[in-house]
Amino acid sequence: MSHPQILDFLNLEPEGSTIDDLDTPVPIIDIDVVDRNVRRWQTQCDRRGLANRPHFKTHKLAGLARYQLAAGAKGMTVQKLGEAEVLARAGIKDMLLTFNIVGEAKLVRLAALARSTDIRVVADNAQVVEGIGRAGAMAGREITVLVECDTGGGRNGVQTPSEAAALAQVIAAAPGARFGGLMTYPKPRTREVTRDFFSMARNLIEAVGLETEIVSTGGSVDLWDYSGLDLATEYRAGTYIYGDRYLVAHDACSRQDCALHVLSTIVSRPISDRAIIDAGSKALTSDLLGLTGYGIVPDLNDALVSQISEEHAIIDASETVKIDIGARVRVLPNHVCPVSNLFDRVVFVRGRTVLGSTRVDGRGKVT
Amino acid sequence: MSHPQILDFLNLEPEGSTIDDLDTPVPIIDIDVVDRNVRRWQTQCDRRGLANRPHFKTHKLAGLARYQLAAGAKGMTVQKLGEAEVLARAGIKDMLLTFNIVGEAKLVRLAALARSTDIRVVADNAQVVEGIGRAGAMAGREITVLVECDTGGGRNGVQTPSEAAALAQVIAAAPGARFGGLMTYPKPRTREVTRDFFSMARNLIEAVGLETEIVSTGGSVDLWDYSGLDLATEYRAGTYIYGDRYLVAHDACSRQDCALHVLSTIVSRPISDRAIIDAGSKALTSDLLGLTGYGIVPDLNDALVSQISEEHAIIDASETVKIDIGARVRVLPNHVCPVSNLFDRVVFVRGRTVLGSTRVDGRGKVT
Repeated sequence: MSHPQILDFLNLEPEGSTIDDLDTPVPIIDIDVVDRNVRRWQTQCDRRGLANRPHFKTHKLAGLARYQLAAGAKGMTVQKLGEAEVLARAGIKDMLLTFNIVGEAKLVRLAALARSTDIRVVADNAQVVEGIGRAGAMAGREITVLVECDTGGGRNGVQTPSEAAALAQVIAAAPGARFGGLMTYPKPRTREVTRDFFSMARNLIEAVGLETEIVSTGGSVDLWDYSGLDLATEYRAGTYIYGDRYLVAHDACSRQDCALHVLSTIVSRPISDRAIIDAGSKALTSDLLGLTGYGIVPDLNDALVSQISEEHAIIDASETVKIDIGARVRVLPNHVCPVSNLFDRVVFVRGRTVLGSTRVDGRGKVT
Repeated sequence: MSHPQILDFLNLEPEGSTIDDLDTPVPIIDIDVVDRNVRRWQTQCDRRGLANRPHFKTHKLAGLARYQLAAGAKGMTVQKLGEAEVLARAGIKDMLLTFNIVGEAKLVRLAALARSTDIRVVADNAQVVEGIGRAGAMAGREITVLVECDTGGGRNGVQTPSEAAALAQVIAAAPGARFGGLMTYPKPRTREVTRDFFSMARNLIEAVGLETEIVSTGGSVDLWDYSGLDLATEYRAGTYIYGDRYLVAHDACSRQDCALHVLSTIVSRPISDRAIIDAGSKALTSDLLGLTGYGIVPDLNDALVSQISEEHAIIDASETVKIDIGARVRVLPNHVCPVSNLFDRVVFVRGRTVLGSTRVDGRGKVT
């Protein structure tokens, strides 16, 4: 059987012939790099016997989600109902929504999704479980709920294995809800902590007669680390498909694996060591993620984007010999996921050749 | 003559009756606070004899721009062509675009705007002037160009008064362009530096036989400071209309002047001193602007938004007694302008009463 072809999944519209024809700022995405990233990570998941459940938030493109599934992913991860609704419209049924759903308007939407898809959700407290149960009742079927565990990430999640077991029982007892397993967004480089938490929680849950069917973990930084995954049944990662400066800084991908850059134009060079581009925080975001600066410019010897305003970014030009006003430069952003959220359209390229553009289906789905 | 009524300028669509009916996260904007901010700043500008040229980027709503003009503003400031095109469609003709326009696609758009509006632009280098001149030739009329001066802000701008005079001559000599004056985005609290720069530049420009018609300065932090404005003919400010945590921190507005909050829902309280809301960096941005944390929560004794992820924010709950899961809380963001850029719609309220919602006309105009 031949491997699915990525271009068949993207309905690209014509958009000039080379990147010199594009107006800036604009995200340009190398399709061959995306394809290699998708296949390589799928191969890893297959080798490890882990279900691959890529995060939609990184690309927000229904076409790329369908390609990830065609290439072997079991289902998609979404962080909000708006993203799940986009995927449902694209015919995707296997989704895990990894955020507590709270509020009547959202529960009605969850019920609608539960009628047309196999969406699963998470909860870390009993109030959330109660709401999901009501959504299940509205949908006329039980909704599977994983217990979100805080295994060191310090965001949502029950704090101890015994709390996890207690919440599993609450889920199992709630009409309209069904206990499906455990989920965490772990702190990087702490796989053993997560495994120990999951091991204890699973034993406690088994002791009360429930089955932990799914053990869902994730994170892009630790992608290539085999250790500590023996209890995990599925892995959620998003950024691997595009790569970014943060992943490079943490040795989770190489520069050659970075598929998305923000193409921008040099608009000013007021002094020799300051060049200014037309991409600011509304194109690159102001995410630092512990890095210095807001991105780097491979086309200018990796010059640093040292300061950012809404529509300006300042490139530290001290080590670059010559920068012409009007020159196009690619910026590697610190964090690629929120960049996808800032643009209505992105452009796919092969090197400098433009293949076409596509709408970002999930952009602006704020709730 | 009666004062124009702000509600007449916003085509609000029905959206529930109180803020409890709204899905979260969503920006809620108190219309009475907006109205008071618009009128008060206009009164100040009138007293000072300064033309008021509000920045569109803060609200990106054509209706509010039309209201600012009806209340006395001379024209609008825009930072990119996409914003100017939105205002042009709303029938607004007097605009200043305060960013170097570079690239053929943009020059064609500038020419189209120059045919239908009185748009003025800025430049800080000769290549930009050359392009604007070509756009003027395409439009069949001279486009007025102000020389952008770096009077300490450290972004775009010529560095010295003599460079300003030299560029003024380049503009005056360029077919399709016309020299209109000087412009700066000054560093806060340095009015005298800017005045001295402008004074010297104006003298040098006069000495070569050119007139400095417009002297355009701006900035919200220094809004209420009268000093050092004797050469200025117009003032550009954006944030004053909504207010934000940054302006409060710099005594440029009070907490009562803050019109926009991001309404969010408490979704988890994993430990006593950590509550989690459903608004992350895709609702609040990760802009720090020198502040600690990503916002504050007036409804919870000004608890700090201490950490932010894409869809989560962590509220430091240590000083708040009780937080129920499902409770709605308003977040005062650090920086209000990029928040407007993240939402397709915003909701206008009067206290807790919802007046209706409107599309953010300028959102997503990235070029």
